[in-house]
Amino acid sequence: MNLGDASLNSATVRQASLLAVLDLAVQHGFGHVALWRDVYHDIGPVRARKELDTRGLGISSVCRGGMFPQADHSARRRQAADNRAAIDEASTLGARCLVLVCGGVVGKDMAGARDQIREGLLELAPYAAHAGVRLAVEPMHPMMAADRSAITSLGEANDLVELVGTPEVGIALDAYHVWWDVNVEIETSRAGGRIFGVQVSDWILPINDQLASRGMPGEGCIDLAHFLHQVRATGFCDPIEIEVLNAGNWARPAADVARMAARTMSAL
Amino acid sequence: MNLGDASLNSATVRQASLLAVLDLAVQHGFGHVALWRDVYHDIGPVRARKELDTRGLGISSVCRGGMFPQADHSARRRQAADNRAAIDEASTLGARCLVLVCGGVVGKDMAGARDQIREGLLELAPYAAHAGVRLAVEPMHPMMAADRSAITSLGEANDLVELVGTPEVGIALDAYHVWWDVNVEIETSRAGGRIFGVQVSDWILPINDQLASRGMPGEGCIDLAHFLHQVRATGFCDPIEIEVLNAGNWARPAADVARMAARTMSAL
Repeated sequence: MNLGDASLNSATVRQASLLAVLDLAVQHGFGHVALWRDVYHDIGPVRARKELDTRGLGISSVCRGGMFPQADHSARRRQAADNRAAIDEASTLGARCLVLVCGGVVGKDMAGARDQIREGLLELAPYAAHAGVRLAVEPMHPMMAADRSAITSLGEANDLVELVGTPEVGIALDAYHVWWDVNVEIETSRAGGRIFGVQVSDWILPINDQLASRGMPGEGCIDLAHFLHQVRATGFCDPIEIEVLNAGNWARPAADVARMAARTMSAL
Repeated sequence: MNLGDASLNSATVRQASLLAVLDLAVQHGFGHVALWRDVYHDIGPVRARKELDTRGLGISSVCRGGMFPQADHSARRRQAADNRAAIDEASTLGARCLVLVCGGVVGKDMAGARDQIREGLLELAPYAAHAGVRLAVEPMHPMMAADRSAITSLGEANDLVELVGTPEVGIALDAYHVWWDVNVEIETSRAGGRIFGVQVSDWILPINDQLASRGMPGEGCIDLAHFLHQVRATGFCDPIEIEVLNAGNWARPAADVARMAARTMSAL
């Protein structure tokens, strides 16, 4: 892969400040970055945009909005306000999409969580359309159904996006979350032009925690070359993000991790 | 739940010997046990059957056969021989089914793993029929796709069982593996009379490893009452197993763990 078509997700080098992330991206030839909201929190999205522009970097996505299921009405109102703030930030930054981590089960009620996700997304979509920001529903690995997302497969995400039925709501497709699914190829084709963002990392064992046990591309058992072939066949031509959440990497110098990210993405 | 209709899976008290498992089951009122093969390895299935009969205990399942995908032909032949041995043991023990953990990806080839599973199962089924042993395909949680099973949803398992199309091949349904799935209710109904075994544990966080991070029923976020209602609605009236793989519990006295298992199953 030409790194000009790749994006360094800030969570891959979570130990680094925003400016360090941007400089590492430039140094290694990434054409783009993806930013988690915490990384630009201190300097704010306006200045972050200037720093991006100064370096000629694009921004593939902002992470995250979502977390629609909440225990009560006031928590849902607070979350809705935060989601609108995330949309404003993504607009200011010029991101290609805002990734939605939709939120996990509340209590023991998965059906209720899914209802809240659908209702929350339907409420949020017009605001996003007005701001010119695309919302990318990320189906997440089922091991995150309790704490991060009740949307656990690409098929379910496609159903949700089709139900919402507006052009500004699509899919964020991360190989780590969907590689295990017997229907992933069919559902990737079905998602088609609704794929707004694509992320890669690799599946490695053991799982030390459900969030941050991911491997660099090529370290694990996901056939990422095939995955990217399927993605490109849909017409997707935006940057491919490397998002490797790994607690071990976060304890190392960010420069080493960025170098490894660049090397493994080049090899894809 | 009446514990006479419940089964203590030996993996819940993996620190205990076979005789200790059986005595704990009797002491707490379980009408049945389920046995992993390692627990009766030393004394053998013939004597194990006598010890079960002496105590008036039924045996809901033996775990496990499967592991069909292998790197080469000779490894597949060795695995096939071991699967036939597992069938013989289940027959000797009088188990209601042999659970099949079908095996994970080989290299990066999930489609190839699925092909090997289908072919291995088609080859094994006549031997099981001849022995009068039912084979129960266990769809496993997608976080086990790399090392334990490429069959990652109940829908996929139902497709496989229907493809094989013989009455001695059905489903082992474990709430822990399938609770996250938006289609779990539809697919439970579809499985219907092909459900040969049912297991419960609960989903708790964090995941410290992909195998042994499970909670006792009621400790986590799975609506087990609803799950069992769905299962009973299919006509399933065999024992419900408690199978809680938890590394922390395994470091405690088996008697304490068995007491907790009995209490949480009674409360279901």
